[in-house]
Amino acid sequence: MANDEVILLGFWPSMFGMRPRIALEEKEVKYEYREEELMEANKSPLLLQMNPIHKKIPVLIHNGKPICESFIAVEYIDEVWKDKAPLLPSDPYDRAQARFWADYIDKKLYIPAKMIHTTKGDEQEVATKEFIEVLKVMEGVLGDKAYFGGDNFGYLDIALIGFYCWFHTYETYGNFSIEVECPKIVAWSKRCMQRDSVAKILPDQQKVLELAKVLRQIYGLE
Amino acid sequence: MANDEVILLGFWPSMFGMRPRIALEEKEVKYEYREEELMEANKSPLLLQMNPIHKKIPVLIHNGKPICESFIAVEYIDEVWKDKAPLLPSDPYDRAQARFWADYIDKKLYIPAKMIHTTKGDEQEVATKEFIEVLKVMEGVLGDKAYFGGDNFGYLDIALIGFYCWFHTYETYGNFSIEVECPKIVAWSKRCMQRDSVAKILPDQQKVLELAKVLRQIYGLE
Repeated sequence: MANDEVILLGFWPSMFGMRPRIALEEKEVKYEYREEELMEANKSPLLLQMNPIHKKIPVLIHNGKPICESFIAVEYIDEVWKDKAPLLPSDPYDRAQARFWADYIDKKLYIPAKMIHTTKGDEQEVATKEFIEVLKVMEGVLGDKAYFGGDNFGYLDIALIGFYCWFHTYETYGNFSIEVECPKIVAWSKRCMQRDSVAKILPDQQKVLELAKVLRQIYGLE
Repeated sequence: MANDEVILLGFWPSMFGMRPRIALEEKEVKYEYREEELMEANKSPLLLQMNPIHKKIPVLIHNGKPICESFIAVEYIDEVWKDKAPLLPSDPYDRAQARFWADYIDKKLYIPAKMIHTTKGDEQEVATKEFIEVLKVMEGVLGDKAYFGGDNFGYLDIALIGFYCWFHTYETYGNFSIEVECPKIVAWSKRCMQRDSVAKILPDQQKVLELAKVLRQIYGLE
């Protein structure tokens, strides 16, 4: 697969876009990253052509064929480049558990996380409480393991770690400390950040906060 | 795996519950089906114990260990009982496509489908239009193939076929003909219904309509 053409359409602060990128880095697959724009009107013709259904990043394009949706792209990467750095566990039950908690992150963590920095007042307070509650569930799933799957970095780590670059933003607008609430999640995040695959892809927390500030001004929240 | 204990917690009109049941039937796995009740207060202690996070059916319980979420359960069944009736395609790209469209069904078809028989007026009209639009997309994906994956019944067929027992309900409240709008989907549904695995699990369309009528009265829509 040395001559494979691999392109990844993403948007730098998107945790969804980070997932397949980290997977490609773990597998040491050479790929071209193309940055999409935030605004609907500025989406590239390639994105609209490759993901006409959802018109969303990330899109992995492998030899001209698109794979959309972050978890589906990560599973695809794991299946195609299967000889290096396995991401999903090999045992079917462990695989089902990894998929369950990844799905839980998108269903239960993403919305309250986003609402912490895109709302204010009561709505913001409720979102912050919910975020902490869900993150504590994930802290329980992690337990005392180095990574979610045990000793090796894998699928569920990839599912959650993108939120880490937003932690400073959540803390700023939610007025709380993630380290106080979920110390194991913070320790795990720092452990993940020692990996080249993660450190290379996750943007700086301060840069993400600057974006959040601008967006709050645009949406009239400041 | 002859001595395996397999239990499936479901609710008869739920298309989510039907998915792992059809998968188990296709694999000819012996299992015990346990019917859950609609009302939150009447959920079984076993369901609450096995799916404390979402408290929802379906739950597949394999030798005492729970697997929740319908697609995750179907993938698990396919991975554990892998020697008979493969459900996901073997090619990684085809697998990604099957997963993409299954996800699309849950994200885009389920809500408008439900709203056709749980709302009225403009809301119902909008939902009906959206349902037809999304089902037409799926008709395009099916094309002239016998099943979504080609000649063999599989994952994406399992993802969609549960809606078929609700077709009469959608047509009754949405005031349209699915056969007129999506003739290939109806022909495919009838083809699926010729399989024992599907015919055994899907309830009668009239029985589903009776339930929908009762629910509309309970919710004060009639």
